[in-house]
Amino acid sequence: MKTKKQITDNIIKEINRNLIQIEDFVNTPKLKEAYSYLISNGGKRFRPIMTSLSCAMFTNDYLHAINQGAAIELLHNFTLVHDDIMDKSPLRRGKETIHHKWDDTTAILLGDLILGLSCKRLKIGLEPMQGMQAMNVFNSGLVEVCDGQGFDLDFENRSDITLSEYEMMIEKKTGSLIKVSFVIGGIVGNANNEELEKLAKVGNELGKAFQLQDDLLDIIGNQDEFGKKTGKDIIEGKKTYLIIKAKEKASKIEHIELLNKFFKNSGLSENEVPEIKKLFEELGIIDEIKALIFEKFEMVFKSIKEIRDNEYSEVLVDLLNDYKTRVV
Amino acid sequence: MKTKKQITDNIIKEINRNLIQIEDFVNTPKLKEAYSYLISNGGKRFRPIMTSLSCAMFTNDYLHAINQGAAIELLHNFTLVHDDIMDKSPLRRGKETIHHKWDDTTAILLGDLILGLSCKRLKIGLEPMQGMQAMNVFNSGLVEVCDGQGFDLDFENRSDITLSEYEMMIEKKTGSLIKVSFVIGGIVGNANNEELEKLAKVGNELGKAFQLQDDLLDIIGNQDEFGKKTGKDIIEGKKTYLIIKAKEKASKIEHIELLNKFFKNSGLSENEVPEIKKLFEELGIIDEIKALIFEKFEMVFKSIKEIRDNEYSEVLVDLLNDYKTRVV
Repeated sequence: MKTKKQITDNIIKEINRNLIQIEDFVNTPKLKEAYSYLISNGGKRFRPIMTSLSCAMFTNDYLHAINQGAAIELLHNFTLVHDDIMDKSPLRRGKETIHHKWDDTTAILLGDLILGLSCKRLKIGLEPMQGMQAMNVFNSGLVEVCDGQGFDLDFENRSDITLSEYEMMIEKKTGSLIKVSFVIGGIVGNANNEELEKLAKVGNELGKAFQLQDDLLDIIGNQDEFGKKTGKDIIEGKKTYLIIKAKEKASKIEHIELLNKFFKNSGLSENEVPEIKKLFEELGIIDEIKALIFEKFEMVFKSIKEIRDNEYSEVLVDLLNDYKTRVV
Repeated sequence: MKTKKQITDNIIKEINRNLIQIEDFVNTPKLKEAYSYLISNGGKRFRPIMTSLSCAMFTNDYLHAINQGAAIELLHNFTLVHDDIMDKSPLRRGKETIHHKWDDTTAILLGDLILGLSCKRLKIGLEPMQGMQAMNVFNSGLVEVCDGQGFDLDFENRSDITLSEYEMMIEKKTGSLIKVSFVIGGIVGNANNEELEKLAKVGNELGKAFQLQDDLLDIIGNQDEFGKKTGKDIIEGKKTYLIIKAKEKASKIEHIELLNKFFKNSGLSENEVPEIKKLFEELGIIDEIKALIFEKFEMVFKSIKEIRDNEYSEVLVDLLNDYKTRVV
């Protein structure tokens, strides 16, 4: 049995090799260059790792779903490239975004092209029934992620978002591709319908847990460790779980005033970040969200073990446990 | 037997009904409004009509492939919405484009969403084998059309495009979705591989014939009838078949000078359009392109009759004959 690190390193190596192969299907010089730049962005390949390990729970072969993992990684990158245009983001993971390094036209077209290439890659090696099943899940993921982005943009202009609306949005925007990763791994591994449903639930909960972690790390995270400026969401006026929950719970006059200021000005200034952090602490929201994240991770671990209790489910839980402890 | 007009009217009605149904899957208010606006743009629904008639040649049922026709119409609209952003076009068919009426973000996201919805729609009512076959063709069409757009943008900055490069580009950009329309109609009608290959060739030739017609109509078309300003391609510096062929054939000094001016300034002024039209006539290019278009249409008619010689192949040929005579 290989170690967790050996397995994930091996998956990442094979995914990268697969993504490089796909470059042969990009024909024009500018798009080829942009594609090559995109896939060398040093992504964590988290989704394909989930697909590979999800499949390995059923097949004992963690390289069996590499084509499907690569397809999902490309689908994920498609969403990033287009989202970065919409959000006018100049940087991603410290590197220039496609639309910023080239232009909007290149980024729109590269996104469209890699989506087409990902659909083609997804079906490689699958039986017709499996292929149809995988395509259904993949396409639903695409629709959900667009839907989630639509709601996210819609929420920007509203100050009355409820927690359940927020959960629905992140389930679509962040959760759907993680769900797709698990379920397609299961489909390639010939999991039955009950198992696929459980995998969907695992992906869903995990996606929500990650988004809540992101919301929390924005305010308590170490900038050096996470590469993101502390309080960025607050400064940009993003309505995260913390903010929505605070609006629900606040009753002290100075809390209400600070939150009203946040909504009125679509964000706070950098020097007000410690103040809002204190507000979250006083309202018990930091502890609450930590507990919620932990609960979701525990539910995920339990479900995975219920689906299969073998070497690969252990690797999966072990790996996800590293993510869980990011918020300790 | 219904008349050609009754059949096409009926297909258009059913396609529009189908597209309206899809609106239920668009969840956010802004995207819903934009989707509704998009599908009410009065498109000719040419591609779904081809899909329906292609299928009817094998099944005698011209409403059998409606879901697939709607999927292809949405795929086509996805390319239009994104191309209009890239080309910064304010109008399409006399109506404001999505990115112009709303913004780039709405247009990017609406395009992505309808692509996802079209993939889902495509599979409705198909057996797994058929579904996989249809998805393969559909995804290849998506990749080809992006590839074609990539070459088109690439060619904007080059003045040395050869005719074969131009043909390759229009085959991808214009031909591929027409090919997809015919082939998927055949797949739904359970055509065999040989028949599907012939349908692909029909779609390909027809796509090229249409693009050549567009190139020609730009210079000889009646503005009122075609809704497009005469000489628009020339003014915008587009390297159409006429221009590339003229560059190949020109030997008189005044011809060479006018063409050099076109390439140097990326287009000519409106009052130079009659001059370049005269150049095309003197070089015999107008007659040549007309003959080429006619030849392609005749090849298409012959191939269709070879595939099936029945009521629906007659309707198809009859309908396409109306398009052929656009350049008389």
